Amino acid sequence: MDVQLNSDMGESFGIYHMGNDEGLMRCIHIANVACGFHAGDPLVMQKTVRLAKGYGVKVGAHPSLPDLQGFGRREMKMRPDELTAMVLYQVGALKAFLDAERMPLNHIKPHGSLYGMAARDEVVANAVCDAVEKYGVPLYGMAGTLHEKVSKERKLSFFSEFYADLDYDASGGLIITREHKAVDPGAAVERVLRAIREGVVRSQQGPDVRVRADIVCVHSDTPGAVEVAKAIREALDGFPSKGAGPRE
Amino acid sequence: MDVQLNSDMGESFGIYHMGNDEGLMRCIHIANVACGFHAGDPLVMQKTVRLAKGYGVKVGAHPSLPDLQGFGRREMKMRPDELTAMVLYQVGALKAFLDAERMPLNHIKPHGSLYGMAARDEVVANAVCDAVEKYGVPLYGMAGTLHEKVSKERKLSFFSEFYADLDYDASGGLIITREHKAVDPGAAVERVLRAIREGVVRSQQGPDVRVRADIVCVHSDTPGAVEVAKAIREALDGFPSKGAGPRE
Amino acid sequence: MDVQLNSDMGESFGIYHMGNDEGLMRCIHIANVACGFHAGDPLVMQKTVRLAKGYGVKVGAHPSLPDLQGFGRREMKMRPDELTAMVLYQVGALKAFLDAERMPLNHIKPHGSLYGMAARDEVVANAVCDAVEKYGVPLYGMAGTLHEKVSKERKLSFFSEFYADLDYDASGGLIITREHKAVDPGAAVERVLRAIREGVVRSQQGPDVRVRADIVCVHSDTPGAVEVAKAIREALDGFPSKGAGPRE
Amino acid sequence: MDVQLNSDMGESFGIYHMGNDEGLMRCIHIANVACGFHAGDPLVMQKTVRLAKGYGVKVGAHPSLPDLQGFGRREMKMRPDELTAMVLYQVGALKAFLDAERMPLNHIKPHGSLYGMAARDEVVANAVCDAVEKYGVPLYGMAGTLHEKVSKERKLSFFSEFYADLDYDASGGLIITREHKAVDPGAAVERVLRAIREGVVRSQQGPDVRVRADIVCVHSDTPGAVEVAKAIREALDGFPSKGAGPRE
Repeated sequence: MDVQLNSDMGESFGIYHMGNDEGLMRCIHIANVACGFHAGDPLVMQKTVRLAKGYGVKVGAHPSLPDLQGFGRREMKMRPDELTAMVLYQVGALKAFLDAERMPLNHIKPHGSLYGMAARDEVVANAVCDAVEKYGVPLYGMAGTLHEKVSKERKLSFFSEFYADLDYDASGGLIITREHKAVDPGAAVERVLRAIREGVVRSQQGPDVRVRADIVCVHSDTPGAVEVAKAIREALDGFPSKGAGPRE
Repeated sequence: MDVQLNSDMGESFGIYHMGNDEGLMRCIHIANVACGFHAGDPLVMQKTVRLAKGYGVKVGAHPSLPDLQGFGRREMKMRPDELTAMVLYQVGALKAFLDAERMPLNHIKPHGSLYGMAARDEVVANAVCDAVEKYGVPLYGMAGTLHEKVSKERKLSFFSEFYADLDYDASGGLIITREHKAVDPGAAVERVLRAIREGVVRSQQGPDVRVRADIVCVHSDTPGAVEVAKAIREALDGFPSKGAGPRE
Repeated sequence: MDVQLNSDMGESFGIYHMGNDEGLMRCIHIANVACGFHAGDPLVMQKTVRLAKGYGVKVGAHPSLPDLQGFGRREMKMRPDELTAMVLYQVGALKAFLDAERMPLNHIKPHGSLYGMAARDEVVANAVCDAVEKYGVPLYGMAGTLHEKVSKERKLSFFSEFYADLDYDASGGLIITREHKAVDPGAAVERVLRAIREGVVRSQQGPDVRVRADIVCVHSDTPGAVEVAKAIREALDGFPSKGAGPRE
Repeated sequence: MDVQLNSDMGESFGIYHMGNDEGLMRCIHIANVACGFHAGDPLVMQKTVRLAKGYGVKVGAHPSLPDLQGFGRREMKMRPDELTAMVLYQVGALKAFLDAERMPLNHIKPHGSLYGMAARDEVVANAVCDAVEKYGVPLYGMAGTLHEKVSKERKLSFFSEFYADLDYDASGGLIITREHKAVDPGAAVERVLRAIREGVVRSQQGPDVRVRADIVCVHSDTPGAVEVAKAIREALDGFPSKGAGPRE
């Protein structure tokens, strides 16, 4: 099984544009498509799904807290039943466009603060998994967080993402910034290959920390995202299979 | 095939309550469930679907223009591709809750101004049908309008609704008011039975006008809706089958 | 200076109704009017301001987190600059309707989770006060919380509310529930008079806790709110002036 | 009185950016600031007002239909009382940021479809003027439309805009496109000067049509907007005063 490259796509809204989706679709294997709560609207979702189909890219849902103004990056305290219903709603909405194109739903990856809250809060992680379970698709998240722990306990399929364009802190946590800084494509490739082969990344503080790269993620709003994605894709394509072991 | 009773359900939003859904679920055969654009939210949708399941009520989607403040009753000029994507989004969102309960999608019935625009504007009717076609379910609408004409041209299944609690004008058009007035249950039953048996209703102006009652609709926000629905349901239950001919 | 009665008003939205505003306006001195972020819309706000004017009721702003679906009762993590701008926006919007009626802005009272967050988090309290300061009107809040502490530090006018229809816990904190239970008018009057005269209320656990009742609040969604407000108003009207000392 | 240059500003939303506001602020005399209904959010509004203050630019309100997804460019049928309240709400919200900076409200200019509807529909024009009247500031619009007719009838101050970067049709109407095409700065200057001096513009069909340029508008989303604005500003600065006659 090969390590594949994914990216968050379809994050335009109305006349507001975000990222170079077409450029990235040429490089990635998998798209996490926004579902209208932090970004995306029905037409953007439809176009993004069709674009992915045109490039042979698999599509998963990228549901969010209901916060367009904050791009899903402001935490909200919601009850678990609200969270589960909110995820189901968004995944179902995306599935309409997948069904129309006869494409399967590949996975579910929570966005922004929902991703962060599910990593740290067992109630949130379970609320998300209550929705994921209905679809029987893998959850994308981070190894070593409640994403993985709760998925395992519930026997859900789980893939651990490695972020090619974000820094990690000394405890292995992602450093998430509002604006992403430019990343050198060559350095990104090296980080990715090291994460896959050795399971470590050099933290911002210096020492290596453990990571697991079942899949690799590049953000569409990182400056130079297409060049970074292209370089990583080429490296992954030349990379020998990880072997027979299951990803999760 | 028998004439069945439907009603718009799940039109609460957050802590705002609308209608006596539980009371009506005991009387109706079919629920048109709001999809979050004019009313409803993910949790309300989930509860409404489960409530319908508990009472053996079939569920269709009730998609709307994106106008919560106007309850979907303010016309908006949208491009046909926007309309189609908007309907797909909402139907997909509802289907998430149906899939989770292993219930099929029964039909699609546009709400409010979207219903009215599709009745009069061929572009809108086709945009709605572009979405309906993807799901292969019947469209609910009004005989004699573009709902029916466009459905037929496109060979989609179509059911004509008769409204038990609204007046018709001399040309057979519905008189839609912001606030519904109370209706006498006995008079409503008489109107319904006459519509089914004779295909006519007495217009507000006096003369009879032609209508077709493949199905009968009662609004949940009509004062005394549950009593009206109960009386109609009892009348329909005692009513002999319409015969072997297909509804449409 | 007399103790006055206030209530949250204008919490309808579109066709969704909330509370008996007209009934309460006959009883209260001061209305806290929703500004469209948790409830209210421009037309509701205009009508509520005019209704208040008709009854000689003073009007303050009741700004909220941007969460219509959660009625402003779900905490959100926002940056202080976002919070301040958000409060300014809402107060300004309300002021448009006050200006049109030549009424002054009486005060600002944060709603729901914004109220709760400002009580506990100094950054939030200061962000709210940054907006209040621009208007030079009093802040309504709870004595003994950061509402009072931060207002004092910044030399803003502050009035402490006593809630006639909510329970207090043993530490003097309000017990806020999603749905309010009915309250006996006579018992409410007794609680209010005791809070004013003795500065205490019996907590849910039994022992008295200290409170301060510069003003008294009744919720419009408490069952029987009008009867409760009427009884309290009559008691307050018969109550001798607190004396010449400034409230704050 | 000199002809001045205005532009729509503050049309970013959350992390979505729109236009080069800072570049344009150096060139324009007057900013029409979005009020959160088609674009802008409280923080964007605050920053835009402060930016305008820094460059000595006057600020007016740019209220819209409630349609963020459609950028206020999809017509909606609203009742006149809803329209008036909606405009008051937005102008009041903007005024909060002006008041905080001790800046006056300069004018009101409806955005997008609200602008177009008010030009053609007397009910809408009056609904807008009902709000404008409360503020006693000029309305910006187009001479020869109901903007002007209704303003005059109601004795409101009115300024006619000439659009430097849009084509006019043979009847003098603006040709409004979703995406604006690039405009040559030199050609734009020529068009503007001819509109001011001769009161005509060459229509897309060829023949000249009458226009009136009390003020000149450049769109921030026209490619090369800053260069166009810079060239026009230089031309206007060198342009002799129009004389003693009142603008309107």
